[in-house]
Amino acid sequence: MTAPMEPLPHNDLGLFTDLYELTMSQAFFNQGMSATATFSLFTRTYPPNRAYFIAAGLEDVLDYLSNLSFSDRAIGYLQATGIFSEEFLEYLRGLRFTGSVRAIPEGRLYFTDEPVVEVTAPIIEAQLAETFIINQVNLQSMLATKAARCVWAAQGRGITDFASRRTQGTDAALKMARASYIAGYSSTSNVLAASIYGMPPTGTMAHSFILAFASEIAAFRAYAASFPDRTILLIDTYDTIAGAWNAVQVAKEMEADGRKLIGVRLDSGNFDELSRKVRKILDDAGLDYVRILASGGLDEYEIETLVQAGAPINLFGVGTKAGVSADAPWTDMAYKLVSFDNRPVMKLSPDKVSLPGAKQVYRVKDVDGNFAIDIIALEDENLPGGLPVLEEVMKGGQRTAPAATLEEIRGRFQADFAALDDRFKTLNRPPRYPVSVSGRLERLTSEVREEALGINVSDTD
Amino acid sequence: MTAPMEPLPHNDLGLFTDLYELTMSQAFFNQGMSATATFSLFTRTYPPNRAYFIAAGLEDVLDYLSNLSFSDRAIGYLQATGIFSEEFLEYLRGLRFTGSVRAIPEGRLYFTDEPVVEVTAPIIEAQLAETFIINQVNLQSMLATKAARCVWAAQGRGITDFASRRTQGTDAALKMARASYIAGYSSTSNVLAASIYGMPPTGTMAHSFILAFASEIAAFRAYAASFPDRTILLIDTYDTIAGAWNAVQVAKEMEADGRKLIGVRLDSGNFDELSRKVRKILDDAGLDYVRILASGGLDEYEIETLVQAGAPINLFGVGTKAGVSADAPWTDMAYKLVSFDNRPVMKLSPDKVSLPGAKQVYRVKDVDGNFAIDIIALEDENLPGGLPVLEEVMKGGQRTAPAATLEEIRGRFQADFAALDDRFKTLNRPPRYPVSVSGRLERLTSEVREEALGINVSDTD
Repeated sequence: MTAPMEPLPHNDLGLFTDLYELTMSQAFFNQGMSATATFSLFTRTYPPNRAYFIAAGLEDVLDYLSNLSFSDRAIGYLQATGIFSEEFLEYLRGLRFTGSVRAIPEGRLYFTDEPVVEVTAPIIEAQLAETFIINQVNLQSMLATKAARCVWAAQGRGITDFASRRTQGTDAALKMARASYIAGYSSTSNVLAASIYGMPPTGTMAHSFILAFASEIAAFRAYAASFPDRTILLIDTYDTIAGAWNAVQVAKEMEADGRKLIGVRLDSGNFDELSRKVRKILDDAGLDYVRILASGGLDEYEIETLVQAGAPINLFGVGTKAGVSADAPWTDMAYKLVSFDNRPVMKLSPDKVSLPGAKQVYRVKDVDGNFAIDIIALEDENLPGGLPVLEEVMKGGQRTAPAATLEEIRGRFQADFAALDDRFKTLNRPPRYPVSVSGRLERLTSEVREEALGINVSDTD
Repeated sequence: MTAPMEPLPHNDLGLFTDLYELTMSQAFFNQGMSATATFSLFTRTYPPNRAYFIAAGLEDVLDYLSNLSFSDRAIGYLQATGIFSEEFLEYLRGLRFTGSVRAIPEGRLYFTDEPVVEVTAPIIEAQLAETFIINQVNLQSMLATKAARCVWAAQGRGITDFASRRTQGTDAALKMARASYIAGYSSTSNVLAASIYGMPPTGTMAHSFILAFASEIAAFRAYAASFPDRTILLIDTYDTIAGAWNAVQVAKEMEADGRKLIGVRLDSGNFDELSRKVRKILDDAGLDYVRILASGGLDEYEIETLVQAGAPINLFGVGTKAGVSADAPWTDMAYKLVSFDNRPVMKLSPDKVSLPGAKQVYRVKDVDGNFAIDIIALEDENLPGGLPVLEEVMKGGQRTAPAATLEEIRGRFQADFAALDDRFKTLNRPPRYPVSVSGRLERLTSEVREEALGINVSDTD
């Protein structure tokens, strides 16, 4: 194995693929197999305590497909491995994505077995994209879903994303900021994410700031002097109650200057008890406008407990546990070939059976406009009474419409979430939302299974 | 909030920071506080079933610090937020990292409370780097530790990294490839990672490849024709046993051409039972050289069970659960101010107390050369009998030595791991490795605590 003279930049995404995508592609190439394939991206099972997913990551997928190519350095690297033929590398050099993509728009809800993205293209183009597509849609949908659970638990109180320092890498930090905003967070602490996605950045102060001064109150005063209109004081560095008294003192000094302290932050201890004590100290001092933010180890379960107990917390800063989806850090998302050269296909591996053919999902609403049932059907079926959920978003390698804004995506989520019965939003062991399969898809599945077993198993078993 | 006209590229890392790092910096700037600070990066507690950590991520930290700056676009964005003063932005425009870094070298073991990285610099420079430093060292150390557990469980069988599609983002995929190689994996499927880090790329074939052909055996033949010297056949698409017979057939055809099938891959079902059946089919056909690779849902616990049962598996392909450190997807890593302007400092928040002052870790070995105890001491202490673990790796903003090669780092891990008693490597509830605090550091901690309480709490409590 020879390493290239100069390493590739981390964002040279042509090579962000599993080696087998490239070796299989060379085998397809050598066999002259260039027919059209459809791959379907779906999640087989729910992680613990989940009953819905939020579609997210499609923007990055479309961006990736629009730019899919192999740089000279990438080709040089592949050449140096000695694995690939010159003919295939020459083919790769000219490769661009020319296919189409149908997908559930970002922000919309989806459920197990439903294709969230379907890619139809010459088989090599669709195959090479597998690794990146799963990576991004899995991550972003998972994080958006986790964030939605926090927003649901907070019952209208604001949440800000504090996860960047503990997400699994820089990419995840950026994607968490965006995904959590789609799901209803109000802002992120990550400045790069805020700049990229046009979101509000937010923040308070760290313990190090307090420690750098001779006393807590000196630190409070210094910060308020620099940011008279956006100060939230961190009050737990030494003792939260003593910190609250210092905050009262500084808030009063700010009032004398015609300014208002925005809030105080609790970052450790018993939030229920401390928030009540601090609220009373603030209220007794006539500072009922000063808000209380709690952060540190929070997730949807903890937020629900605090909200149900009536803890007087106005805002939650949620970091680590949401940023890594701690109780469910992966999902069983797969990208499976469902059709090749107009032939529907499926695998039969135990517990991993996939449904054949390109598909559509029809969502049926009840008389009140709430989601009643989803039906997974073949793409060319038309199920009266159901609204199709997948839309064509790319054709001939080109986007069919400009990218939606983040606000639009956030709006889609709000609309879908409002139409989902609350019982599916329960944090612990929610029931399953009903998803069925159309009669035609069911029959096709049986036929393809029989045929596959006949060719591949019966004569050797 | 005004978004910039053109979004920043994702790799413009100057802004990869929490907003409060920048607002605190402006407050420091306004107060004329430019004295030297030391921040210490450490992990407070062990995640479940962990008793050691592997240092990883330092290379990225040093690279980040060497390049720390704010681009024109970054400054433009900050200006547009309306939060910052022109004077401070002008200061940021010229900011470079001028400090020093002491760290536990990548690949070496460390334990709770031990500083894995210490940054000493003018306070603003050290403060701004917090978010990126925690993000990277937390991720990479966590992934290396998870991978080391898999390697330990495999007891000499090879492991290859198949995690890229399910890691939490693209950054995590690249870092997993590198971290797992440090910990003893043999290769990665991620081609970009292999090219960046000079690691061996590896791979087999996917179910989609099989499905694209009229039959499984046709797919096997096509792949073997393209890669006569590096074929591993995936045999579970329809039925693993039938697939094994097809593999035998193709292996015999390859033998007739003077070629050898490398292996077969199991990707579903009961690996213990299937591997024995497949091994027998292969052996009975005179194919004892064909290796068996198992993949799909594996982690250290599952690998240990298979190895202890004696399942004839030669190689493990490990993906999702290792790539997200599924049983422990975050660690309690923090970056705390421990000294400012020659004054040792500490916070007193419940459960989050930090030790004051810049430190050194001394590792004491027993007569056999095995690790006996670690002692956390002040940087200027000299503990006879113990070997200092932290090294100076950056001074005046410059690296003190060229980057170690990945093979060197892997060697460091092997040496340290060999010197760690096996009982700490137990997968379930390992005992704690002894770590103590020097007398001087203990006394300093008491003094700083008393002083902090005196100034900040007693008169208001």
